[in-house]
Amino acid sequence: MGPFTMKDKDLIMRAAHQEGIEPKKLEELLRGGRAVLPCNPIHSPVPVAIGEGLRVKVNANIGTSRDYTDISEELKKAAVAIKYGADAVMDLSTGGDIDEVRRRVLDTVKLPVGTVPIYQQGIEKARRGAVVDLTEDDIFGGIERHAKDGVDFMTVHCGITRESVQRLRRQRRLTSVVSRGGAFLVAWMVHNEKENPLYENYDYLLELAKKYEFTLSLGDGLRPGSIADATDRPQIQELLILGELVERARASGVQVIVEGPGHIPIDQIEANVRIEKSVCKGAPFYVLGPLVTDIAPGYDHITAAIGGALAAYHGADFLCYVTPSEHLALPTIEDVRTGVVSARIAAHAADIARGRDLKLDERMSRFRKELDWKGMFDTAIDPELARERWSSRATKSEACSMCGDVCAMRIMSEYLEGRKGQKDHGVC
Amino acid sequence: MGPFTMKDKDLIMRAAHQEGIEPKKLEELLRGGRAVLPCNPIHSPVPVAIGEGLRVKVNANIGTSRDYTDISEELKKAAVAIKYGADAVMDLSTGGDIDEVRRRVLDTVKLPVGTVPIYQQGIEKARRGAVVDLTEDDIFGGIERHAKDGVDFMTVHCGITRESVQRLRRQRRLTSVVSRGGAFLVAWMVHNEKENPLYENYDYLLELAKKYEFTLSLGDGLRPGSIADATDRPQIQELLILGELVERARASGVQVIVEGPGHIPIDQIEANVRIEKSVCKGAPFYVLGPLVTDIAPGYDHITAAIGGALAAYHGADFLCYVTPSEHLALPTIEDVRTGVVSARIAAHAADIARGRDLKLDERMSRFRKELDWKGMFDTAIDPELARERWSSRATKSEACSMCGDVCAMRIMSEYLEGRKGQKDHGVC
Repeated sequence: MGPFTMKDKDLIMRAAHQEGIEPKKLEELLRGGRAVLPCNPIHSPVPVAIGEGLRVKVNANIGTSRDYTDISEELKKAAVAIKYGADAVMDLSTGGDIDEVRRRVLDTVKLPVGTVPIYQQGIEKARRGAVVDLTEDDIFGGIERHAKDGVDFMTVHCGITRESVQRLRRQRRLTSVVSRGGAFLVAWMVHNEKENPLYENYDYLLELAKKYEFTLSLGDGLRPGSIADATDRPQIQELLILGELVERARASGVQVIVEGPGHIPIDQIEANVRIEKSVCKGAPFYVLGPLVTDIAPGYDHITAAIGGALAAYHGADFLCYVTPSEHLALPTIEDVRTGVVSARIAAHAADIARGRDLKLDERMSRFRKELDWKGMFDTAIDPELARERWSSRATKSEACSMCGDVCAMRIMSEYLEGRKGQKDHGVC
Repeated sequence: MGPFTMKDKDLIMRAAHQEGIEPKKLEELLRGGRAVLPCNPIHSPVPVAIGEGLRVKVNANIGTSRDYTDISEELKKAAVAIKYGADAVMDLSTGGDIDEVRRRVLDTVKLPVGTVPIYQQGIEKARRGAVVDLTEDDIFGGIERHAKDGVDFMTVHCGITRESVQRLRRQRRLTSVVSRGGAFLVAWMVHNEKENPLYENYDYLLELAKKYEFTLSLGDGLRPGSIADATDRPQIQELLILGELVERARASGVQVIVEGPGHIPIDQIEANVRIEKSVCKGAPFYVLGPLVTDIAPGYDHITAAIGGALAAYHGADFLCYVTPSEHLALPTIEDVRTGVVSARIAAHAADIARGRDLKLDERMSRFRKELDWKGMFDTAIDPELARERWSSRATKSEACSMCGDVCAMRIMSEYLEGRKGQKDHGVC
């Protein structure tokens, strides 16, 4: 038996309707753990299904930092993310009143909301001492607190173990650990000379997940943080452990997704998706990028769109957005917009390459052919930006300021299709 | 014998040095037509080799339009394009004094300069009548004029023939012809009921190319302008004809590259590269994007970066940049910067995936690990933008405003690598 029971039938119906598939099909995917429907009943979000063969989904991270603690700004980011098509929002707050941000986000965001509880635990401990002083009760208490607030899915770095850290030491990576949660846990393990509590007490974690009905997102604490470290032994070692934990979650009726890299060159992306799907038995794959080069700070929404499109085409199910501020700063509201649109482009490009949602592109091209600007703006992934760019460069023609009257669409309409009388366009 | 003679040895030496390969190897590629070195002796640019196994190159289009005729603005665009790493510049002017723009561009740009002579011929004819009134002398006279000015490579739409236009009519495309030069020629052929002069008198074109030593860029006038039309029969028909023309150019000692799509979904990009390389016998492939979705006007630098990275990874040699203004307006100077950087990201991502230039990424990651911000900015593809974004979000920590003191790099430096005393970072 999978995690789903009769009381969830309604959720499945709604999610299946959104996907345009039969509820029976979605139920089958959910039962097999090949898709998830993150939904904590306390929050009870719009059901969003993530997984095999479904439309590729996009997550937007928001959240305060030590330097920027304004809650209203983070709520605005959440609103902008949703407006531009995010399917889920993660609150990664690390500054100010972290409980308050999360609760306000859960109050206002109707989509699935995720968190990384170890951030809050680690930061709050660090404020009064050091992250390595965390107790196991702190860690699990934090998770339960988030669950009780209604968090729908949580990143838990359970695959960082003595085994994977040992392999990390042997590897001599260029950038050892770039995951914040991963770094907290590695530091904790090294300092306390103990096994990762999230691994050691994984059964208890599963109990909590089962009780509060949140979805586990198995974090990739050892994901590569540079092209030089991509697809190395520590990364794959952690993935093997996550694969085992996926099976234990399924056996306990807990929904689970697996997080993936990170920084990966184009030639290794397909392999990364295939190995995840294989060793994690088809569990939904949630990728952070991947970024296909390290040298483009300021443009990492683009390096991530390249990697994300390719990963999704090969089977990744869920793309974590990356903003232009990645590696540089806490994103602004405008960055969130750019990040979401870029990730949506990647997701949609993968969807159409897999035969879904082609009608949108067709509609856009039809409006282009007709030089119907309103139609084009309405169909655009970001209507306001498209309209702004077009109207900021005035033109005397009905086309645009690039081609003006020598627009190929216009010329063909007259000469190839014989619609000569339709519009006079000067060139003929 | 290929197009290269002893007097070109020096050029080959310099280009090979730039590529970090043996001159002998480059010479072999050039003789076989698997690489080109566009270089009109009248202009005599820095030699830039484009082709098989070489670093992926980027072209930036500039040029006036009917609505925007300021030459100094276009020269600024050229300067910005070069600053951010363009390897070639095409002047596609269609407004104002077109001869003057081209001559000023050739005077100031030290890289290979390309043009599309049919634009000027068509526009100037249209100003006094109609594009379909062009004579064959107009067309070839225009080409010779550009050659005499020193243009290094020219787009010539020789593959639009009665045969390919017939196939176009049968196809009933969504967007028939989106290439401007292609549209001019199709209109001309339909109206005059004649074969394309660039095809019919291809031998004369080869004579001109041989005489003035410019490189032919065989234009894809029937490239798909929408996802719905991708990889269809007219597109491939034209490519077959271009393949034949490549062989005739080689036999005449004329350098030649082949232009490619356009709008292509992710699943068809590899096939497009492979078929070009096969039917055009390894001629360098110059792609316009490809854009992997139609629905993102305002973000087509991103849709093109996805397609371009993938195409280049599979063997495309030369990427024509696409700016955020694509489908909407004539690009601004800022658009040129964004377009060039986006295309450079795609080119570099493909290069590293094919094992080249990995040192840059390594250097960046090393600076990241050391939290050496100056080093990071200096290594970034766009140093100014990276610095601007970082400094616009003040932080109290030595890291950035995202993670502040809980930077994973810092924590690992202390706990995993035992560099505890090095820097005090609050969290411990």
